[in-house]
Amino acid sequence: MAQINAERFLADLDALREIGRVSTGVRRRALSEEDMAARRWLAGRFEAAGLRPVWDPIGTLFGLAAEGDGPWLLVGSHSDTQLEGGWLDGALGVVCGLEAARAHAEAGLPPLAVVSFQDEESRFSGLLGSHVFVGATSLAEAEALTDLDGVRLGDLRARYPELAAAELVSPGRFNGFLEAHIEQGLELDARGETVAAVDRIVGYRQLHAAFIGEQNHAGTTRMARRRDAFRGLVELYGALDRAFAPLLEEATVWTIGRVEVAPNAPSIVPGAARFMVQWRDAEAPRLEAMESLLRREIAAVADRLGLSAEISETEALPPCALDPALVDCVRAAAEAIAPGRWRTLTSGAIHDAQVLARVMPAAMAFAPSIGGKSHCFEEDTKREDLVATARVISDAAARWTAGT
Amino acid sequence: MAQINAERFLADLDALREIGRVSTGVRRRALSEEDMAARRWLAGRFEAAGLRPVWDPIGTLFGLAAEGDGPWLLVGSHSDTQLEGGWLDGALGVVCGLEAARAHAEAGLPPLAVVSFQDEESRFSGLLGSHVFVGATSLAEAEALTDLDGVRLGDLRARYPELAAAELVSPGRFNGFLEAHIEQGLELDARGETVAAVDRIVGYRQLHAAFIGEQNHAGTTRMARRRDAFRGLVELYGALDRAFAPLLEEATVWTIGRVEVAPNAPSIVPGAARFMVQWRDAEAPRLEAMESLLRREIAAVADRLGLSAEISETEALPPCALDPALVDCVRAAAEAIAPGRWRTLTSGAIHDAQVLARVMPAAMAFAPSIGGKSHCFEEDTKREDLVATARVISDAAARWTAGT
Repeated sequence: MAQINAERFLADLDALREIGRVSTGVRRRALSEEDMAARRWLAGRFEAAGLRPVWDPIGTLFGLAAEGDGPWLLVGSHSDTQLEGGWLDGALGVVCGLEAARAHAEAGLPPLAVVSFQDEESRFSGLLGSHVFVGATSLAEAEALTDLDGVRLGDLRARYPELAAAELVSPGRFNGFLEAHIEQGLELDARGETVAAVDRIVGYRQLHAAFIGEQNHAGTTRMARRRDAFRGLVELYGALDRAFAPLLEEATVWTIGRVEVAPNAPSIVPGAARFMVQWRDAEAPRLEAMESLLRREIAAVADRLGLSAEISETEALPPCALDPALVDCVRAAAEAIAPGRWRTLTSGAIHDAQVLARVMPAAMAFAPSIGGKSHCFEEDTKREDLVATARVISDAAARWTAGT
Repeated sequence: MAQINAERFLADLDALREIGRVSTGVRRRALSEEDMAARRWLAGRFEAAGLRPVWDPIGTLFGLAAEGDGPWLLVGSHSDTQLEGGWLDGALGVVCGLEAARAHAEAGLPPLAVVSFQDEESRFSGLLGSHVFVGATSLAEAEALTDLDGVRLGDLRARYPELAAAELVSPGRFNGFLEAHIEQGLELDARGETVAAVDRIVGYRQLHAAFIGEQNHAGTTRMARRRDAFRGLVELYGALDRAFAPLLEEATVWTIGRVEVAPNAPSIVPGAARFMVQWRDAEAPRLEAMESLLRREIAAVADRLGLSAEISETEALPPCALDPALVDCVRAAAEAIAPGRWRTLTSGAIHDAQVLARVMPAAMAFAPSIGGKSHCFEEDTKREDLVATARVISDAAARWTAGT
């Protein structure tokens, strides 16, 4: 049986934290110098582990067995971060993959392949590396993307010699994908549990909308004559509370996180209220039903208050059911490593695994997030839980390779 | 009886519109070159009318009888404007004063004094000229004020030779103040009426407040675990609707016109919602009762949703009852000039008259605002209504000077 080396695993995780470190967190935006430095460090660790580093054209880095063409089980995540990134988001899954590959090689098990996908965190486009890998986004499309400062991905990748000559890696070389990640929620931490098997990933939809009323003097315009656009947003919020209530499951979420009032002055009745609504669920029909209710309520509020409404097209990522057989390997591993201290969860966040799931069996394991915090410098997990997660990944991979 | 010259009155109003003209509106921010050019033009018109131009140190301009020390009835308003100012806001009242003074002189009636107060529109501080005039703000305090770009009033006034040597003008030289202004609301225009006598000016109170919750991932943080600061603002709005309902009179208004959500991202549960609440009424006890309810409801919402609340000190301007005898002169003049086509109104906007009312009898007349629009380039009034308003001012002044 493969045995991970906890000391070596934690030392690598700590070493990766130092690349792009800011306070207790990290900043490694996709294709930045810090991101590429982390990937080069990782390529060195692959070589030291007997794996062959293989770059794809946008900087996704694979560690492949020195011999043979596979198919192998691919294990990993991403090493790019948010602007204010935590030290474990993505990095944990990549180093779990590295350590599992080393442990399997030392135990004489079939080789594992390791990966760090590029730009999961959306400097250019969310889950970009996995979209390019599965062919959902072409290299030409990826090169044409720009970040918020107008930097073109194609111009940036040309700076790095590893990428200029790189070729796409075929998904056909792998027979499954296993990803460890921090939970980014409170379900494990609140219960004092060690690890989770993830069987589903929620989909999300979001849209931009606005109520347009009449901008007016807040002293001389009587309440009965007002067409206050912000009042429209307030009434919509209450209407959505009522309309969504019969539909919501425990893990269904909806959020109005972005709001702009114009002209945004204390003495002026708001003439416009622009906002975004986002909703997530693991079931596509529920996402669809919520969208119908949302569009209906926006129109109803506008009609009732004498406002006009603007609604954008919907941006959507469909929900994903992970592979039952590979999820069962993670469950069995969790019960072996942390008996009674694990559960099965639906992921409320999006992950590369849901893109990979389109072309191969995929599953995930979650480590607890202390206080549910992520995408911030305070993000952290107990060291024993990190080690337990690495053990679950290695054990689940062994179960999968034994069965395939 | 004094007879105004409608052609001369409108020609002066049109001439003043050209100074600082932008599109169909004007831009004459207090103490700008355009503002001072308008005041110099006005000083010339005073001289041509046999009045003596007298500057105060911050640029309020008086037109006083060439002989004697008064007391005179002071008639006027302000000629500074908002950044996107309408052509009549303030200017109408000043030119009404000029024309009434000319008509009274031509009719051999006791002289009227004319005034254009400085910075009514709050480049440095709202109603500043009238506050300095009545002694509520000292010259030293006024000089220390800065505008939004950090320009100090004291530095600016030193540029203008008229102001450098000017002295304060004593309110004791006047026996009352009469101000014409556009309504800035829809009450007259919606009824097709010509003019209003104003007997009260609302007071207002406003405060800054915030709900602070917990910023969190909008995918992984379940609804039941959220402490969403924007939800706090939404619930407060509904609570205020219910709490204020029994108190509101027709002219009572309240507004949440300024809202800032943080971090204001579609995928993040809002951690903070900062906002301003402003409310206006003609009765101080009602303003006080609304403040108590507001503070109570903010605390109750925070408590119910597990948020913390921050509330600033209250900024307040008390409501003002204008002088009954002088208001009666305006009413009698309105009935004489526009029989059956006038009414008595409470002003929902603030005016220099409410500051003057602290030290002398004061009253106002309103001209209709087409579509209720003001503080914008579209602001306008029918020419026959402008002339009727000038007639009402001249006639009311004659009634007042006959009685004093």
